[in-house]
Amino acid sequence: MVAAALADGTADRDCVFEVFARRLRQGRRYGVVGGTGRLLEALPRFRFGDGELAALRAQGLTDRRLLDWLADFRFSGDIDGYAEGDLYFPGSPVLTVRAPFAEGVLLETLVLSVLNHDSAIASAAARMVSAACERPCIEMGSRRTHEEAAVAAARAAHLVGFVSSSNLEAGRRYGVPTTGTSAHAFTLLHDDERSAFEAQVAVLGKGTTLLVDTYDVEQGIRTAVDVAGPGLGGIRLDSGDLPTLARRARELLDSLGATRTRIIVTSDLDEYAIAGLMAAPVDGYGVGTSLVTGSGAPTAGMVYKLVERDGVPVAKRSEGKHSVGGRKHAVRRHDTHGVATAEVVTAGEVPARDGDRDLVVPLVRGGEICDPRSPADALTRARAHHERARAALPPEAFALSRAEPVLETVAQ
Amino acid sequence: MVAAALADGTADRDCVFEVFARRLRQGRRYGVVGGTGRLLEALPRFRFGDGELAALRAQGLTDRRLLDWLADFRFSGDIDGYAEGDLYFPGSPVLTVRAPFAEGVLLETLVLSVLNHDSAIASAAARMVSAACERPCIEMGSRRTHEEAAVAAARAAHLVGFVSSSNLEAGRRYGVPTTGTSAHAFTLLHDDERSAFEAQVAVLGKGTTLLVDTYDVEQGIRTAVDVAGPGLGGIRLDSGDLPTLARRARELLDSLGATRTRIIVTSDLDEYAIAGLMAAPVDGYGVGTSLVTGSGAPTAGMVYKLVERDGVPVAKRSEGKHSVGGRKHAVRRHDTHGVATAEVVTAGEVPARDGDRDLVVPLVRGGEICDPRSPADALTRARAHHERARAALPPEAFALSRAEPVLETVAQ
Repeated sequence: MVAAALADGTADRDCVFEVFARRLRQGRRYGVVGGTGRLLEALPRFRFGDGELAALRAQGLTDRRLLDWLADFRFSGDIDGYAEGDLYFPGSPVLTVRAPFAEGVLLETLVLSVLNHDSAIASAAARMVSAACERPCIEMGSRRTHEEAAVAAARAAHLVGFVSSSNLEAGRRYGVPTTGTSAHAFTLLHDDERSAFEAQVAVLGKGTTLLVDTYDVEQGIRTAVDVAGPGLGGIRLDSGDLPTLARRARELLDSLGATRTRIIVTSDLDEYAIAGLMAAPVDGYGVGTSLVTGSGAPTAGMVYKLVERDGVPVAKRSEGKHSVGGRKHAVRRHDTHGVATAEVVTAGEVPARDGDRDLVVPLVRGGEICDPRSPADALTRARAHHERARAALPPEAFALSRAEPVLETVAQ
Repeated sequence: MVAAALADGTADRDCVFEVFARRLRQGRRYGVVGGTGRLLEALPRFRFGDGELAALRAQGLTDRRLLDWLADFRFSGDIDGYAEGDLYFPGSPVLTVRAPFAEGVLLETLVLSVLNHDSAIASAAARMVSAACERPCIEMGSRRTHEEAAVAAARAAHLVGFVSSSNLEAGRRYGVPTTGTSAHAFTLLHDDERSAFEAQVAVLGKGTTLLVDTYDVEQGIRTAVDVAGPGLGGIRLDSGDLPTLARRARELLDSLGATRTRIIVTSDLDEYAIAGLMAAPVDGYGVGTSLVTGSGAPTAGMVYKLVERDGVPVAKRSEGKHSVGGRKHAVRRHDTHGVATAEVVTAGEVPARDGDRDLVVPLVRGGEICDPRSPADALTRARAHHERARAALPPEAFALSRAEPVLETVAQ
């Protein structure tokens, strides 16, 4: 596309591309915008160096004009979008790229890869955090997804309220608090469970969390309290019928005087399993597979569409998928109590109205990041933004059952 | 775990860890081992440099002995496993790591991340290739998954027979043949469809594939043939009822003399949609979302379990998940016609028998890769291995409906 547009002179046409989702996945009631910060990190690095150009030539791409253009490529356009952590609904203009065609079209895959992945994880994780109410959720899914996606998933989970992650690299890059756990392998390594617990407590102190279900849960708990004393920090249950086991464990811990020892549960948890444990005496959830795979929706399904060319709205018109042309503005409307009532998306200006919040903020101007921050600072800020945006949703947003988006997207 | 094992002297215990899947996802009949080559690429780079160690200290990890050990870490053990591209069934010992405990346990997340992701994609992609029979499948899903997972997904798809990918980086790293497409944005960029087609044909020749469904498919096809002539390489349909559209497109192309112009279809295809197009005059499938998300199973669910310690089989024994202790051998049994009949997995030796194929090959010895190859060569070899292994499956393996694994895993 770039080669042909360079050849016929259309490469420089002023274009507006819009990122949006046609629908929310899995009957979800809201989506969470994730990845904007990662995209802004990646943008300055998105260049074509000698290695990349040589590889393109080796793949048969010999168009001299295209290769020269790629060698000089550096994004020079503008990007606006929803602040990371904000919510989105069908048709929300999550990101808008204004640039010469060739530059804008080149960004498509980068933009969509980052936003589709991170928004999918953030949207699933937010439901888990809601289902857990105030109990902490811990991200433990690295081993169930691609090794780099794992870092992004840990970041997306923290964005929406997961307290920590087992992914040390997410700690290094983004300041996500990290936490560990011991595996059955550590117990099996030792001659008996007691030796394993002693080794762990000797190094990590009695505040550590001991995995008690390698052999027999009841005996495991007795041994754990015997080794660490009633001040043992926590126990972890990773198998079996967790509501029943957690209740029995709580009774046993209390009877042993370990009344403040926390019970952490893991084992293929998702938002429904977390909700099912609400009445059980559980103090924290470790979530793996279902988090990093978006709990049934591993991609957010966002698309990147040309909506304006030289100031003229454009849109695909044949049967099937429809898009609305023209650059969009968006506000979230709130009632007098501050509760969100609608997502207003329009190609024109939105008349100012009490309770409206502008959703689109400038992210890049002339290729330069508007508000450069360290990756960790950007995430902290997005976390706070997410918390505010979510707090404004009506209570029915947090039901887990399939339904329509909680806010209707309206044109005005 | 490593800190505690270093402290109590168990870190050096000779351990065997096994990677296996307890079940196949989604009622699939076989799984495909993907990622082994990527794992062997990553292994020598899996070290802790100054940056990583400083980050660990910043995260509160102050154990001097552990930090020193990590600084010196370099995997020194042995790895055996199924050759990449081979098939697996529940309990197949896909990878076996033999090393001192601390080294083996440190590899867990890396090993599982790579194998779980790549095997999930390869297993889904193999079904698409089967459903397409001899028609080519093209990988186009980069924008629907994490930007690095996208490269691995393109690689995994090629492993099982996808002919090409739109991911240029997969071409660069792994020699995956690359191919492009034009988007609706390219048509919309131009003043009319004809100008867009002329621009594309001028640069890419009449052998290119033109996207004909931006405005009206019939008119698009007429314009395409008018611009490129009856020698037009292909048209692409990306929306609507594809079986109907493809039939009409074929008739129209034929009536215009473009009898050899190929019809490429895209638009949320998965293995079922591909199968549903078998009777339609389609010449190739572009597959995106469902490929990179594993068509409903985005992770293979493989686990990494300690099965032997100092020569003694070990296994978790409490309720819930069960594992079988001890290092495993595995052969695939075949009948006299060369058709696979069983997956024999045993902790002992398997008596040699006609038609048996040893499944476990040495991959790493003393930390060194046994058969070092370039990433592209390793993939080529794995592709050939996959084709042979799949050719030995009984025909019922290729049905798409949910069922039991096509081979039973038997102990002997």
